[in-house]
Amino acid sequence: MRNGFTESKADSCARIFAGNSLDGIYSHGINRFPRFIEYIRRGFVYADAEPVLIHAAGAMEQWDGQLGPGPLNAIFCTDRATQLASEYGIGCVAIANTNHWMRGGTYGWQAAKKGFAFVGWTNTEANMPAWGAKDSRLGNNPLVFALPYNSEAIVLDFAMTQYSYGKMEAAHLEGSTLPYPGGFDMNGDITQQPEDILQSRRALPVGYWKGAGLSLLLDIMAAVLSSGLSTRKLSMNEAEYGVSQVFIAFSLMSLGNFPSVERTISEIISDYKNSTPEHPGSEIRYPGERVLLTRKQNLADGIPVLEEIWEKIMKL
Amino acid sequence: MRNGFTESKADSCARIFAGNSLDGIYSHGINRFPRFIEYIRRGFVYADAEPVLIHAAGAMEQWDGQLGPGPLNAIFCTDRATQLASEYGIGCVAIANTNHWMRGGTYGWQAAKKGFAFVGWTNTEANMPAWGAKDSRLGNNPLVFALPYNSEAIVLDFAMTQYSYGKMEAAHLEGSTLPYPGGFDMNGDITQQPEDILQSRRALPVGYWKGAGLSLLLDIMAAVLSSGLSTRKLSMNEAEYGVSQVFIAFSLMSLGNFPSVERTISEIISDYKNSTPEHPGSEIRYPGERVLLTRKQNLADGIPVLEEIWEKIMKL
Repeated sequence: MRNGFTESKADSCARIFAGNSLDGIYSHGINRFPRFIEYIRRGFVYADAEPVLIHAAGAMEQWDGQLGPGPLNAIFCTDRATQLASEYGIGCVAIANTNHWMRGGTYGWQAAKKGFAFVGWTNTEANMPAWGAKDSRLGNNPLVFALPYNSEAIVLDFAMTQYSYGKMEAAHLEGSTLPYPGGFDMNGDITQQPEDILQSRRALPVGYWKGAGLSLLLDIMAAVLSSGLSTRKLSMNEAEYGVSQVFIAFSLMSLGNFPSVERTISEIISDYKNSTPEHPGSEIRYPGERVLLTRKQNLADGIPVLEEIWEKIMKL
Repeated sequence: MRNGFTESKADSCARIFAGNSLDGIYSHGINRFPRFIEYIRRGFVYADAEPVLIHAAGAMEQWDGQLGPGPLNAIFCTDRATQLASEYGIGCVAIANTNHWMRGGTYGWQAAKKGFAFVGWTNTEANMPAWGAKDSRLGNNPLVFALPYNSEAIVLDFAMTQYSYGKMEAAHLEGSTLPYPGGFDMNGDITQQPEDILQSRRALPVGYWKGAGLSLLLDIMAAVLSSGLSTRKLSMNEAEYGVSQVFIAFSLMSLGNFPSVERTISEIISDYKNSTPEHPGSEIRYPGERVLLTRKQNLADGIPVLEEIWEKIMKL
């Protein structure tokens, strides 16, 4: 609130950051809060800005985020997309000039808990080379798919780099090797050594040429549908601000088969979980399942927070 | 036409199969035609069936493909999604009980050439294990993203396995190794040897756990939105028929920034193509770019067709 947030907006932000840590997504939870406040103080993010409707075309709307706080804009857009979906069956909100939404999964959970299927993505600054290239001109552009399940949700939230730079830095500090290849070294050879990738800055796209292509298309769609900045343009900013995002909601309640939706999802998940595990006794989990376990544990034991982060936050 | 197609439908099918080979996608072009006719003769695909509207919810419609020819149903759904998008900004058609659409890119090109952005996918029979599992319970569920560009299109069309079984069989017959890991061998080790993956039937998902998760979510969404069969259910059929598909079109003409859309896309592509190539002199291509080159060459020189396939077709 000392940084220009109303009590209600401060409350929303607190819930999002704490909720992400509660769910075990520490990198985009409380650990990231000092940088969030720093960006407000440096004038990259406006605490009191609210999204403005730029253009409405029925089930599709274009909004301008006015460089407001990314998580608040994203909550708004998710909510608006579900409203449009309630009216039209499907609804899409594209937003320009918004900011880092922290954990994309937050908005997948939001929509799915209200009974909607959800697809959303954001572009980012350039942090991954095109396939066959050495310099980073693509973003890792996280993509989210979500569906309601069992009063909770199935939420897939993944970036187009196989590993985030944060994960590779952590592996490097631990002196460990990545479990699968994560990028190229300075010689252009594929490697599992995090330090070699941190040096070359050539992170591996998910599925090699496929993820690089998907990153390109997600960026173009986000920039075009929102009339906002592309990865190329926002990479010219002194920090990552002014990103473009897309939120698509599908109203399952509007479907002719709504009464059977829950059963269909349960049947697919049961079959999936009945897979023969590679390591006998291990469990095959659906995206978002581990979050429920972590949430339960953290609710019981408290949310682990790094001492140094907590001290930083106390001093903000 | 001897197999129950009207002249107009036979013409559409001929265009699709020939067009896919023209574009260099031989595996889903003329090479696949004998199997297409075989499925009609075996009664898996009904030559004269037409899609039926099951439920309409504004910009979202559910259709039943009546087990008609996949490519004809898919052309219809793409067209219908663009009509809905013209009316509502965004339009979505989900279709149950349809059949293999051959090359997903066909429908991306179709929508993009008419000025729409497009996202679409299909589920398939089970052909890929969950992450950490040994038995196949996921489909490779191809996903398509497309946008208009330069009077043509940018079209990304990829399956959730890193390599198709067709590609791995071809590499095995050539005695070559895959350029990147393509699956697991019988010991559970990741490998580039196609014969080891053909034996284990453990193809690698795009981006490891990420592509496996995406495959699961694409299947659930396709089955739920269309009220159709999931990968699990359609894998119980004696052959792959009765798949579920989703077609989403975005009307770029309906956007407030429509006049600048073309420029935005061109700027992103120019920047992308200005990447520093790993191998000096090589070109960084966007998804769909190579298709244009192949198309031009095949239009000049003729479409290469395997002698044995041509003989098979002549005898059908």
